Amino acid sequence: MLHRFKQGLAVSILLAVSGSVLAQQLPQLKPEEATRYRKAGYAFANRNMLKIKAMLDGSLPYNKDQVLAAATVINSTVNSGMGALYLPGTEKDIGSEKTRLKPEFFTQPDKVKEVAGACRTAGSKLATAAASSNQAQVRVAFDDMGKAGKGCHDAFRKD
Amino acid sequence: MLHRFKQGLAVSILLAVSGSVLAQQLPQLKPEEATRYRKAGYAFANRNMLKIKAMLDGSLPYNKDQVLAAATVINSTVNSGMGALYLPGTEKDIGSEKTRLKPEFFTQPDKVKEVAGACRTAGSKLATAAASSNQAQVRVAFDDMGKAGKGCHDAFRKD
Repeated sequence: MLHRFKQGLAVSILLAVSGSVLAQQLPQLKPEEATRYRKAGYAFANRNMLKIKAMLDGSLPYNKDQVLAAATVINSTVNSGMGALYLPGTEKDIGSEKTRLKPEFFTQPDKVKEVAGACRTAGSKLATAAASSNQAQVRVAFDDMGKAGKGCHDAFRKD
Repeated sequence: MLHRFKQGLAVSILLAVSGSVLAQQLPQLKPEEATRYRKAGYAFANRNMLKIKAMLDGSLPYNKDQVLAAATVINSTVNSGMGALYLPGTEKDIGSEKTRLKPEFFTQPDKVKEVAGACRTAGSKLATAAASSNQAQVRVAFDDMGKAGKGCHDAFRKD
């Protein structure tokens, strides 16, 4: 009974994180693969956030094509069904695959839904802003994406 | 003189890999960061290739939204300016950051240009096919993306 409850809770959380996407992929992934891909996706998204940041703060010349390319990586990542990569057990290190995910991720589905939804929306708005070539709009959307990411980290990442 | 030649060669290769994108970001990245982000980008792209593969081979139900989401990750990654992540020195392991990049990457600019261009084109075609919802077209584009990736690995990845 408890097992069934936990299964149901895990599915609820996955759907909250991923929207309707990819929850059925679960059986194909080993937990350590899920952790590895999850970290890879966020690391590469972060790399692209840093690119945009450098162009907004003047460290690099602003280039709308580069901003759009980076924003597209970020948006496509956060809207790719990341939820499928949060398998039960992946709040722990598995072999050499380390994680900072807090166990609370698997017990707070409403909070997961809130922060994951905020990230997906912010990604979408960032891509829209980047496509518009309006630098002021990009700046606002970039800051919102940063806040959305921080919201997720504050809730569910050990630091 | 040799140093200047090597610098010129490195820039040529970066431009070949990245198109015109992001070569000027070089000074901001440490070599080990470049390796880490490069591996992260390809790992997450590979995760998304495996998603599409599973939907094409019947392991998972074909879902055009999921295929498009995955194809968008792949295309945005290979067209994000990966060239900036091939810093001189990153053909070697740096601390805990391992790599399988062959040293030949930095001495064969024409081959780099060829395989990198093929990857960028294949990514773009995969995204177009996924957006079309034509499963036969997706299958062709997926196979071509796989071949393009293999072309890069055969030339420049130790296995």
